[in-house]
Amino acid sequence: MFDFTVDATSGRARAGSLTLPHGTVETPVFMPVGTQGTVRALSPNDLRSVGATLVLANTYHLHVRPGEHVVATLGALHRFMAWDRPLLTDSGGFQVFSLEGFRRVDEDGVEFQSHVDGGRRRLTPERATEIQWTLGADIAMAFDHVVPGGADEATARDALERTLRWLARCAQRHRELADGRTGERAVSDGAVVRPSARPPIRQTLWPILQGGAHRALREEGVRRILDMNSWTGLAIGGLSVGEPKPVMYNLLEAVEPRIPSPIPRYLMGVGFPEDLVAAVERGVDLFDCVAPTRNGRNGSAFTPDGPVNIRNAEHREDPRPLDESCDCETCTTFSRGYLRHLFVAEELLGLRLLSLHNVRYLIRLAQDMRAAIRRDAFGPWADAWRRRYLRSGSA
Amino acid sequence: MFDFTVDATSGRARAGSLTLPHGTVETPVFMPVGTQGTVRALSPNDLRSVGATLVLANTYHLHVRPGEHVVATLGALHRFMAWDRPLLTDSGGFQVFSLEGFRRVDEDGVEFQSHVDGGRRRLTPERATEIQWTLGADIAMAFDHVVPGGADEATARDALERTLRWLARCAQRHRELADGRTGERAVSDGAVVRPSARPPIRQTLWPILQGGAHRALREEGVRRILDMNSWTGLAIGGLSVGEPKPVMYNLLEAVEPRIPSPIPRYLMGVGFPEDLVAAVERGVDLFDCVAPTRNGRNGSAFTPDGPVNIRNAEHREDPRPLDESCDCETCTTFSRGYLRHLFVAEELLGLRLLSLHNVRYLIRLAQDMRAAIRRDAFGPWADAWRRRYLRSGSA
Repeated sequence: MFDFTVDATSGRARAGSLTLPHGTVETPVFMPVGTQGTVRALSPNDLRSVGATLVLANTYHLHVRPGEHVVATLGALHRFMAWDRPLLTDSGGFQVFSLEGFRRVDEDGVEFQSHVDGGRRRLTPERATEIQWTLGADIAMAFDHVVPGGADEATARDALERTLRWLARCAQRHRELADGRTGERAVSDGAVVRPSARPPIRQTLWPILQGGAHRALREEGVRRILDMNSWTGLAIGGLSVGEPKPVMYNLLEAVEPRIPSPIPRYLMGVGFPEDLVAAVERGVDLFDCVAPTRNGRNGSAFTPDGPVNIRNAEHREDPRPLDESCDCETCTTFSRGYLRHLFVAEELLGLRLLSLHNVRYLIRLAQDMRAAIRRDAFGPWADAWRRRYLRSGSA
Repeated sequence: MFDFTVDATSGRARAGSLTLPHGTVETPVFMPVGTQGTVRALSPNDLRSVGATLVLANTYHLHVRPGEHVVATLGALHRFMAWDRPLLTDSGGFQVFSLEGFRRVDEDGVEFQSHVDGGRRRLTPERATEIQWTLGADIAMAFDHVVPGGADEATARDALERTLRWLARCAQRHRELADGRTGERAVSDGAVVRPSARPPIRQTLWPILQGGAHRALREEGVRRILDMNSWTGLAIGGLSVGEPKPVMYNLLEAVEPRIPSPIPRYLMGVGFPEDLVAAVERGVDLFDCVAPTRNGRNGSAFTPDGPVNIRNAEHREDPRPLDESCDCETCTTFSRGYLRHLFVAEELLGLRLLSLHNVRYLIRLAQDMRAAIRRDAFGPWADAWRRRYLRSGSA
């Protein structure tokens, strides 16, 4: 049910197939982010039309609003958001540590302030696992302690150790839930965990590697995570959080060879097109990022020749599509001139059309990389891709 | 090319077919409004999916931004907005008289302030006709002088007389354009009219009846419009602008029998479901209104049992669709609980899904009325419809 097979390699780059309860995902794969149970401005049909196979939703956001029990009452997350393909939920760790407002960490968990109503809430490894079980995604993530990109070694060591202790607690609770041992009984902090569907959706739990920008901590972290359990996937967290890009690439090069080949590697919060290419080159299989939808809403579109700002006056009378090589609804239907008009006139359709294209762009980029890997030509493909994408210097 | 046939009647209610250059429109018909060349939050595919056959766009808005010559350069309005079915453009009269800001009317036309850049602009009957010719919709509307719903008889008389004089000038210029007599030469105010496509899209011009809430003026207006020309359609303007509903219904009852049967009657700016039913009962064939999209963006949905405000807490855990009888994507895919979540969480998808449903609701309402007319059962159908729709008292 949670098999991963590497079908082909080219250098360190890998093409694989990840089988999940709601379907099979071909890798490398880009996951659009549906923070609040919706990929902003896009419908499930839109996501299917651009070839999305795996979508991410945020445990923190759905816990705060509408609440995981509302989602469960409405048939769990797949039914709630009408997405019948695989889903992954982030654990809430990243949100709790990155959103504004009060937070206090202790060994048990994190107390924080809801961004919706300002009320005090508490997340622990057990609660984060229970909430994700209730939401019912195919893949749940362990609750982690995230530190800023520039954290010193002592701080990063402290967060890594806590993340490892929390991982053991997440795994323990996840095992109990999967075995039905919590059933309908009250669990931590008094809430009741209800199975999100019958027969229960099977779910797997993936650990998150922390360790900041410190290579030795990252290497130690991988070893200790792998010693703990036999995982169906492993996420690399706490990168792309402000550190210089070479730092991220160097850490990937140090960490990735230590992960056994049959474990899919998920680089969290990445990314931009050039980051996807660089990370696949270093053996990464899965990605998520809000960039395609957030940038799309700001009028910035990915193209093979680098980003295009559709608001620019040069597009005013341009009858060409945003990206001549793209097969999405936006590019096969509308001119740059019309898209610019939608943004200048502040029309909602513009937000949707650029989000749709940007998601399609990253999904197709991943598909193109997969094809290059399968013909064992990833290196030359990546060189040619970079020559074109970075030529303009605007990327 | 601009044929209208009445296929069936039931009382005064009519079912007809209007043939236009871009297709045939079955009446009664509701036109979604694409003010700036886009029906807010909806794509052309969305509009096709809900059965829209005729869409309205606003000359004033497209003239001010992006400018009709930009639209022409991008292939004229159909190509610009990627809508290959019939289009109607309003003349700009209503906008010039209803938007905020400076305006000065004289016999030649109206000077007004652009809502985009505050700059002074001028519209005349000739310019409004030329702009619409350049945009290239199937149906253009005459430039009219609109007065508020409560205008006294002298004011309404003055506006009616001016609207009639302007109608003659619109018709004159439209004839010149259709005959190719203006070609590429400079026309009024220095702009060049370029044919919007080759071979030129044929376009018809419809007059707009004014006369405020004064029955005698309305009756006289109809007679003088009909004496002027042989029209392919006739619009009733200046209603649904704040006057009590019985006033609108009484004026319709006075005016409609004076319009020859083969001329389609278009009631501008209407409306709400109960207004559509009341107007079809009084012989109206075409409608437009921003209500379905504007209300949709505010979280208000039309249903057979009256309006529903999706933000209400009662919908929080409701697994039912918005409207169980509806076949739109919103109602066949999502629960009320999820739609409420989208609105409470301020997600863009909510705006789209309620707009889509509301447009589908009005289009289906028109289709249901057509079916009732064709089986000569409009009266009982309308009674049953009202009993259910108005039962809740919330409409």
